[in-house]
Amino acid sequence: MITLMTDFGLVDPSVGACRGVLASLAPGVPLADIGHDVPAYDIERGARHLEYAVPYYPPGTIHVAVVDPGVGTTRRGVALRSVRGDTLIGPDNGLLMWAADALGGIEIAVELLEDTYRLHPVSHTFHARDVFCPAAAHMARGVAIEAFGPQLDVSSLRRVKREAPTVGDGEVSAPVATISAFGNCHFDVLESHWREAGLTGQETVVVQADGHRWTLPYRLTFGDVTDGSALLLEDSFGRLCLAVNQGDARAMFGLKRGIPVRFSRVR
Amino acid sequence: MITLMTDFGLVDPSVGACRGVLASLAPGVPLADIGHDVPAYDIERGARHLEYAVPYYPPGTIHVAVVDPGVGTTRRGVALRSVRGDTLIGPDNGLLMWAADALGGIEIAVELLEDTYRLHPVSHTFHARDVFCPAAAHMARGVAIEAFGPQLDVSSLRRVKREAPTVGDGEVSAPVATISAFGNCHFDVLESHWREAGLTGQETVVVQADGHRWTLPYRLTFGDVTDGSALLLEDSFGRLCLAVNQGDARAMFGLKRGIPVRFSRVR
Amino acid sequence: MITLMTDFGLVDPSVGACRGVLASLAPGVPLADIGHDVPAYDIERGARHLEYAVPYYPPGTIHVAVVDPGVGTTRRGVALRSVRGDTLIGPDNGLLMWAADALGGIEIAVELLEDTYRLHPVSHTFHARDVFCPAAAHMARGVAIEAFGPQLDVSSLRRVKREAPTVGDGEVSAPVATISAFGNCHFDVLESHWREAGLTGQETVVVQADGHRWTLPYRLTFGDVTDGSALLLEDSFGRLCLAVNQGDARAMFGLKRGIPVRFSRVR
Repeated sequence: MITLMTDFGLVDPSVGACRGVLASLAPGVPLADIGHDVPAYDIERGARHLEYAVPYYPPGTIHVAVVDPGVGTTRRGVALRSVRGDTLIGPDNGLLMWAADALGGIEIAVELLEDTYRLHPVSHTFHARDVFCPAAAHMARGVAIEAFGPQLDVSSLRRVKREAPTVGDGEVSAPVATISAFGNCHFDVLESHWREAGLTGQETVVVQADGHRWTLPYRLTFGDVTDGSALLLEDSFGRLCLAVNQGDARAMFGLKRGIPVRFSRVR
Repeated sequence: MITLMTDFGLVDPSVGACRGVLASLAPGVPLADIGHDVPAYDIERGARHLEYAVPYYPPGTIHVAVVDPGVGTTRRGVALRSVRGDTLIGPDNGLLMWAADALGGIEIAVELLEDTYRLHPVSHTFHARDVFCPAAAHMARGVAIEAFGPQLDVSSLRRVKREAPTVGDGEVSAPVATISAFGNCHFDVLESHWREAGLTGQETVVVQADGHRWTLPYRLTFGDVTDGSALLLEDSFGRLCLAVNQGDARAMFGLKRGIPVRFSRVR
Repeated sequence: MITLMTDFGLVDPSVGACRGVLASLAPGVPLADIGHDVPAYDIERGARHLEYAVPYYPPGTIHVAVVDPGVGTTRRGVALRSVRGDTLIGPDNGLLMWAADALGGIEIAVELLEDTYRLHPVSHTFHARDVFCPAAAHMARGVAIEAFGPQLDVSSLRRVKREAPTVGDGEVSAPVATISAFGNCHFDVLESHWREAGLTGQETVVVQADGHRWTLPYRLTFGDVTDGSALLLEDSFGRLCLAVNQGDARAMFGLKRGIPVRFSRVR
């Protein structure tokens, strides 16, 4: 099966054209959309979406992901075969790498240069349609990954930088990593970081950001506090989350992506 | 086949993860999206969407619906088998019940407690992925509904309250039930209520709301009045609708969901 | 296979109902969405989306397209068989015609009047569900196009007017044709017009609109200028485009659809 993730949105006919290319070149191969509302040009956000979604697909799935501000320039188009047997196809700008990690790492990487597997004329601005979807379709029909172009040194692939949290005695600090559509603020803080700091994950926690200070309960789920109340919890992808039950934490706390937040034990 | 309806939106990777779970556990089973833009936490709106859409699907379809502010609390996860043979899967918060009514009522209801048919570890905040979609997938592959957990008394299932219209001589009153994306205002008023009031459905009607009073034509379709003009009509799901041809009735009349509106014969 | 394009959006259950009708009447036939976020009532925009997307689908695809402000009035519902063997189904309001041109022109046109192939009762406001999707489903299952109703004279079909660019010596003028979700402004100016004007497509170009005047580079792709800089380029459907690399050209230049813009050689 093939999946598609882009930042094209669904207002323009771009995704519709991509689906047509897949249906034409790989008739009968099931297509699933991981989503097309990645914020425009936001490679990091796209990398996160892909990382969170791909492990749930069957091994061997071919994932096409396109957040590609450098389309048509010298940035490479690549296909990455994961240890688990999945394939990630898209631009070499960091978008695919966290997903590759989540699938066990990369076994083979190739640059998509073979003209036979492109749609001609290849546009300068729409490689999703002309390069990436055709590659996925041909691969789904059995063409070996090695046929699409020269193999690449995995260490040469570009990565998005991700800041690790700072862990101290009874405290963890990390920037806001993403803010969901509901306004929940997520952090690259895992349960292991929390435990490393000597926090139990069930106490009351002091939260400090941007000169402000709040004391919030750490709970299992939203409904463990009353409507409109804030809490900390582990999100469904295993990361620390600051949320408001049936409300908008971003608005309540005035947070933005990248703002550093400090979580500490009440002393 | 399986359908999916949620309030997750398509900006976050949640729906993409759910589609992956279905593809992994029930490969080859067709998936259709009823929609993922139910307003966040709006159980009533979700219940309406589901009620309107499910009758058009083939009998035997498995519908997963998730608007679930109580996820991870004591609210139950359930599967409801309709008289027609369809299955509704989701939280027991009223979301599924109007759809069950539209499918002829409930034959069997079970609580989704059987660990074998869940994704582990089960998160506290994402039962769509860990409980509901896995249940749908296993059911699509032939597991009997009784295997998913203890049977429930149908009368114990939660319902959303729906206010019946008040019908008098030559008049009908009802609150605005929903407002569509186009701004059309829909009411839980059926042709039978209209007739009960002695209205013919083709006259000019006095509409009163919030201290204001308008006189509007009742017509068959939008284009029966000029662009930008208001009218009453029967919507495509058999309910009374206040609309503006190629315009926005919500804006023109300043209406909101729940505002009581009185429709009466010109005297 | 069947595709679906509408201006219904995905907040309401309308698209979900249409998918159900297709699944019920044509089980097993693959469905792809060209998109449901065509701006409401915008026939021209819908016509463009369809025109750009349909050539990428396999010949023989059945495309249902619905932007239909005249639903339920005297406007006709039609099915058009293209020379390439595709079918276009929807209202006779111009929505389908540019797509038909892109598929080689129309071989047979019929009015969808045959009651057997409609969903009853036929609503006055939702022919996508009751007329167009049922027609597509029956056609996908083998019913001949002639069975759906009387043949129509192709010259009687309605068309949306499209203004040709004005080409002079070293200059081309055209109104803004569409503005994408990214804010890119597209013009009905092809490379052939550009060449006819004696422009090479690689020079610096004077752009004049609304009393303002800018000098912009014509380049191959967005990333050929620095972030936030404006450029002209050929879009991925072969048309002239005014864009800002990782920015919003509509906002930067204050453009709207229909505003006339003049492109000319630096003298």
